[in-house]
Amino acid sequence: MTVLERFAQGDIRALSKIISHVENQRDGYRQLLSRMYRKGSRTLRIGITGPPGAGKSTLVNRLVHEHADRGRTVGIIAVDPTSPFTGGALLGDRVRMNELSSQGGVYFRSMATRGATGGLASATDNVAVVMEAFGFDVVIIETVGVGQVELDIVDACDVVVVVVVPESGDGVQTLKAGLMEIANIMVVNKADRPGAEKIISELKSTMQMRRKSEDRWEVPVIATEAVNNKNIDYLFGKLAEYVEFTTKTGDFERRRRARIKKKILSIVKNRFQNEFIDNLTGKVDFNRIVDDIYEGKTGPYDIGDELYQKFRRQ
Amino acid sequence: MTVLERFAQGDIRALSKIISHVENQRDGYRQLLSRMYRKGSRTLRIGITGPPGAGKSTLVNRLVHEHADRGRTVGIIAVDPTSPFTGGALLGDRVRMNELSSQGGVYFRSMATRGATGGLASATDNVAVVMEAFGFDVVIIETVGVGQVELDIVDACDVVVVVVVPESGDGVQTLKAGLMEIANIMVVNKADRPGAEKIISELKSTMQMRRKSEDRWEVPVIATEAVNNKNIDYLFGKLAEYVEFTTKTGDFERRRRARIKKKILSIVKNRFQNEFIDNLTGKVDFNRIVDDIYEGKTGPYDIGDELYQKFRRQ
Repeated sequence: MTVLERFAQGDIRALSKIISHVENQRDGYRQLLSRMYRKGSRTLRIGITGPPGAGKSTLVNRLVHEHADRGRTVGIIAVDPTSPFTGGALLGDRVRMNELSSQGGVYFRSMATRGATGGLASATDNVAVVMEAFGFDVVIIETVGVGQVELDIVDACDVVVVVVVPESGDGVQTLKAGLMEIANIMVVNKADRPGAEKIISELKSTMQMRRKSEDRWEVPVIATEAVNNKNIDYLFGKLAEYVEFTTKTGDFERRRRARIKKKILSIVKNRFQNEFIDNLTGKVDFNRIVDDIYEGKTGPYDIGDELYQKFRRQ
Repeated sequence: MTVLERFAQGDIRALSKIISHVENQRDGYRQLLSRMYRKGSRTLRIGITGPPGAGKSTLVNRLVHEHADRGRTVGIIAVDPTSPFTGGALLGDRVRMNELSSQGGVYFRSMATRGATGGLASATDNVAVVMEAFGFDVVIIETVGVGQVELDIVDACDVVVVVVVPESGDGVQTLKAGLMEIANIMVVNKADRPGAEKIISELKSTMQMRRKSEDRWEVPVIATEAVNNKNIDYLFGKLAEYVEFTTKTGDFERRRRARIKKKILSIVKNRFQNEFIDNLTGKVDFNRIVDDIYEGKTGPYDIGDELYQKFRRQ
């Protein structure tokens, strides 16, 4: 049997192989993705983000159990754009793998591809597309960090959960605005810690203020203690409620359509990156150019224009 | 007098105008930058980053005073890729502006351009280029957040200071590896808080382990209390020491050369973004395309390829 046949039959090792193929952009990965793409729309894609140390991994773990207990299959993508040097993330992964893989139908993948700047969001989306084609009921994308790339990644989900902890800086003021804007559900985890009530009430009034009208979704603020499994069932219910609500209003579909448009643009950008930038880096004598710029003979703006024009005429 | 003449004479309002021109990519901004570029290399560019709530603003404030007290002029760029909705960042800016602008030769600019994904690093660099041409002795770039874009931004500096606080998660393990890799100087701010000694000794041993050889720069771990102005003079001294050290080893120049190469590639990418992506978004009937994809008639990968080829043949 070919890998694709085994993939179609639900073989996890075939899934891993195809994900690696796509992630490393090996020959034919675009055609592969193209084939995968049409099948995937049944899967619910959940994005989970928040500052480091908010307990996202534990929360994801709990949510996976909630799904698995109901017989749903789950694929998890953990995005941590850091190097493998510290080992912290990798170690964490392994611990989680052990706990989760004992349950059937749960697959964990971590994307630790530092250096894929710009491409990380699109690489993550590609992996999600493969998982959707595999037929998972749910794909959870967890990002560590609160930067723009991380926001872009979870923004490409059907629903976004933002997780904070009571000690996130000194209250709501220091929370990044971008985080609040993308949240469909806010979670204050480690809610037994001091300051929890304050941040919860602050977040509630902030979310109230931001709500555009009565018939729009009201972002709930949910207090959880993931390590003690407290209130996870409530969060789980709210996720279902969100999907139902936005399906009715049409926002669910609108969001998926917006995702498709972004995807097209990112595919075009990626081709440019692969065929031009990578190609250029091999062909041009950057040492000489940099010498010239360093000595003030020319500037990077002139050189950049020149190279771009060259590419257009190629 | 033209704006450029006033700029050359040190007029702060002309500086503001030119920065806005460049930031908003108005007509002729590339030529403008091209002219600016050749003058700037005398300026020391300091990058400061770390998780939200680490007290970076106060620390920057203190460092600016240290420089200003010695008669050096300072330009500050605060990068906060969030929306203007919360007002937190903007309010903070104004408070800081008041304190700082009472001193001569200090100029503050904040980049709060959410949505400029990918372009934010390059937009920040452009503003720094203008400030360097203006003749500031020092340009400090402060980023809020710990994502990939933020790392890229400070990575384009001569020296990078990473600021953390004792309560950053549960110790060094949860710090993002990327942060550690780019640090030339580590600062543990709010060092009067519990847990400071632990994180300082952990960071010290981590940095020791990472040092590649005896003749390389040893990343110092400095305990500060920015609000009480404690140990800022020591940090200031370490910055000077770093510059001296890396100038001797040649790393200072190597780093600037690497910055030039990255700049060229980002200029090329930006032109592609402006001339193709933005153009495309206007010309193509995305609604129809998205309908087709949504209905399973085609996929985003096929469409992306098609559009890319169209552009190449234009």
